[in-house]
Amino acid sequence: MKIVIIGGGAAGTRAAIELRKRDRNSEIYIINEKNYREYSPCGMPFVFSGEVKSFEALQTLDKKFYERMKINLILGKKVREIDTENKKIIYDDTEMEYDKLILATGSYAFAPPIKGIDSDNVIIFKDMDDAKRIYEKMKRAKKAVIIGAGLIGLETAYAFVKNGIKVTVVEMLDRVLPVMLDKDMAEIVKKHLEDKGIEIYLNEKVLEIEKTVKTDKREIETDLVVISTGVRANIELARKTGIETGYGIKVNEKMETNIKDIYACGDCVECVDFITGKPIMSQLATTAVRQAKVIADNIAGKDTEFKPVLNTSITELFGLEIGSTGLTSVRAEKEGIKVLIGKYRGKTRPEYMEGEDIVVKVITDEEGRILGSQMIGKCLIGRMDAICLAILNKMNVKDLANMEYCYAPPVSQEFEPMYIACEMAARRLR
Amino acid sequence: MKIVIIGGGAAGTRAAIELRKRDRNSEIYIINEKNYREYSPCGMPFVFSGEVKSFEALQTLDKKFYERMKINLILGKKVREIDTENKKIIYDDTEMEYDKLILATGSYAFAPPIKGIDSDNVIIFKDMDDAKRIYEKMKRAKKAVIIGAGLIGLETAYAFVKNGIKVTVVEMLDRVLPVMLDKDMAEIVKKHLEDKGIEIYLNEKVLEIEKTVKTDKREIETDLVVISTGVRANIELARKTGIETGYGIKVNEKMETNIKDIYACGDCVECVDFITGKPIMSQLATTAVRQAKVIADNIAGKDTEFKPVLNTSITELFGLEIGSTGLTSVRAEKEGIKVLIGKYRGKTRPEYMEGEDIVVKVITDEEGRILGSQMIGKCLIGRMDAICLAILNKMNVKDLANMEYCYAPPVSQEFEPMYIACEMAARRLR
Repeated sequence: MKIVIIGGGAAGTRAAIELRKRDRNSEIYIINEKNYREYSPCGMPFVFSGEVKSFEALQTLDKKFYERMKINLILGKKVREIDTENKKIIYDDTEMEYDKLILATGSYAFAPPIKGIDSDNVIIFKDMDDAKRIYEKMKRAKKAVIIGAGLIGLETAYAFVKNGIKVTVVEMLDRVLPVMLDKDMAEIVKKHLEDKGIEIYLNEKVLEIEKTVKTDKREIETDLVVISTGVRANIELARKTGIETGYGIKVNEKMETNIKDIYACGDCVECVDFITGKPIMSQLATTAVRQAKVIADNIAGKDTEFKPVLNTSITELFGLEIGSTGLTSVRAEKEGIKVLIGKYRGKTRPEYMEGEDIVVKVITDEEGRILGSQMIGKCLIGRMDAICLAILNKMNVKDLANMEYCYAPPVSQEFEPMYIACEMAARRLR
Repeated sequence: MKIVIIGGGAAGTRAAIELRKRDRNSEIYIINEKNYREYSPCGMPFVFSGEVKSFEALQTLDKKFYERMKINLILGKKVREIDTENKKIIYDDTEMEYDKLILATGSYAFAPPIKGIDSDNVIIFKDMDDAKRIYEKMKRAKKAVIIGAGLIGLETAYAFVKNGIKVTVVEMLDRVLPVMLDKDMAEIVKKHLEDKGIEIYLNEKVLEIEKTVKTDKREIETDLVVISTGVRANIELARKTGIETGYGIKVNEKMETNIKDIYACGDCVECVDFITGKPIMSQLATTAVRQAKVIADNIAGKDTEFKPVLNTSITELFGLEIGSTGLTSVRAEKEGIKVLIGKYRGKTRPEYMEGEDIVVKVITDEEGRILGSQMIGKCLIGRMDAICLAILNKMNVKDLANMEYCYAPPVSQEFEPMYIACEMAARRLR
């Protein structure tokens, strides 16, 4: 069997690896538009900050790994056509047949139409090429403006501060991390960042970039402008092939597109939102690799389904972890769902052990079914995963309010903060 | 309504607080045999280590709190009789009537019959009186022997090392933390402790204590011997009152004993093991406070049940966290359950972020139903709680193998270690 994968990012590369794990004999090809191997895009801000020593370090799989796994990697080639009838793809003058085709075409950075956006000191931040340009300019910059207060924007702001740069963040919406957080939680993050010297302007629109950044409220001097205002799925190739698309490529639970033997995974596909049942873009590395496994299972003849998502995500900024899963209350209300809130602000350890601050917000519907959660503090990884599990098991806050948990003074509280938040939500139930 | 609580530890005190939260008017009495208010027993080793500044700091509720909550605290009185017919308890020459009675009589330290155990340099470690004696002797000790390698034993060993004391631990069984860990996981902890200078002798029985500790294999010089070989439920009062007992006081899901209007919670009661359905002693602070809430709910007329337990527990020793939930494979096998194991040893963060070691073991039955998990590493709190949730939701490793989780390079791996362990177990399924 010959399997061709278009796209060599997290999704495509993981699909290749998982396929090889399940099948020693198939021919596996990855065709990547960019001229480099897979790397961790999530790690790029931490090269800026100096925590990762080089961009090359983000490429965790070396050439030998691909050879050993017998994954044929074709770099710097853009597939321009898929001939679904003859099961061929075409790049340059080359035609390549496939038995199974996997689209892992990823996403591109979406930038708002700002005058002067093509100036030399403005970089729309998406991939490693952009990151390298930012890195070079960063070294000489004294002042920088980041447009967009999402994950990548704030992580870049953090990294710039670490380099002694004066940073201003401009965000069109009313809060930082608007996809992850409600206003009340976002305020905690905003204050934390401001305490570290970052200037943050919300509800503010950038109108023009020249030597300065002009917003609808002020003019900001800067040496460098980084735009990180979100990504969109790369679906052009799919669309012109007759593959069904919405915001992204449409797939079923097996990650199959509407065309036989063509699968899709990663940033380019649409997922199903676990709470609303509606299409949603996930565009997380964890989603990409989990989808890749499902494709590998299905191609290997094992019936596996990719389930609806909560888009559980996390970051750390100046030592503060920020996590989110499921719906924010803003989004829930937009969906017409009346919500109940449980919010607990406490410490990670008993008073006598001098714990650190932790804030947990739990959002439920009026029957107590958990819709989402946001946390700010320390050691959130497993806690976010626990709440995610609880939501996916359709648990009620009432059950979580007195749930079993573990405790020892050096690491936690006698009462687990996430379950206190649930108890507080449960009290609001009729 | 008059509610009398026998026992002022975590269980009894929490019951009083939760009752007061639900009912402003009832009279609430706590009668405590010891002459002091509630304190955190789990925190005592960290007074030895200097991390907690005093034993008083472990008493997180001050006198004013009891007054404000209108909880009448009677200290230093031992209830010698319960007159169930006339609904009275008797201590000294005092009779006190009750409408509802809660037994929270706790547990006592069980010590094996060792010759010389009553010597002045030997302390059986259970409560704050013992801890204060240990603390005084510790100051002058150069060498110490700890008998019993359970949680409290090892935490005390850790604290002694922090004080520059040469510590030897003697354990009768073949591993440290025998309730929490299987041999393979316990070996990691043992090595970690040995690296910190603790001598550990397993499969070894203490025969006699004089000036030295004599085991069946050697003689160990010491200035101080601490015995921490487990606890047993205080059930004498219950038993002579005609309350049904086994290893502990028997209660139903509402935490009611077989006698009307008498409840019990905490270390003195038997729980139900979630996996086996058999009676089990839990004797964790978290179990005590959760049971107390259930009693308060039921007395307040709200129908709540205390569910079977997994006994999820955690500790930290020299920066290494150790967690356990559900059955170990040793215990599963004793129960006649054939197990499958998934074990993953990796890092907490991507290679390029220099993560720390983490080991996750997952134990399932032959159908993939998760029975238990053990973890050693960092930020285990939420991870243990997540696996605990998964088990209580009767999830299969197959579902966890591709479960949603969160990831960001500064705090976690692109692949969550606990779910990799599940994936490894899932591969062993037929």
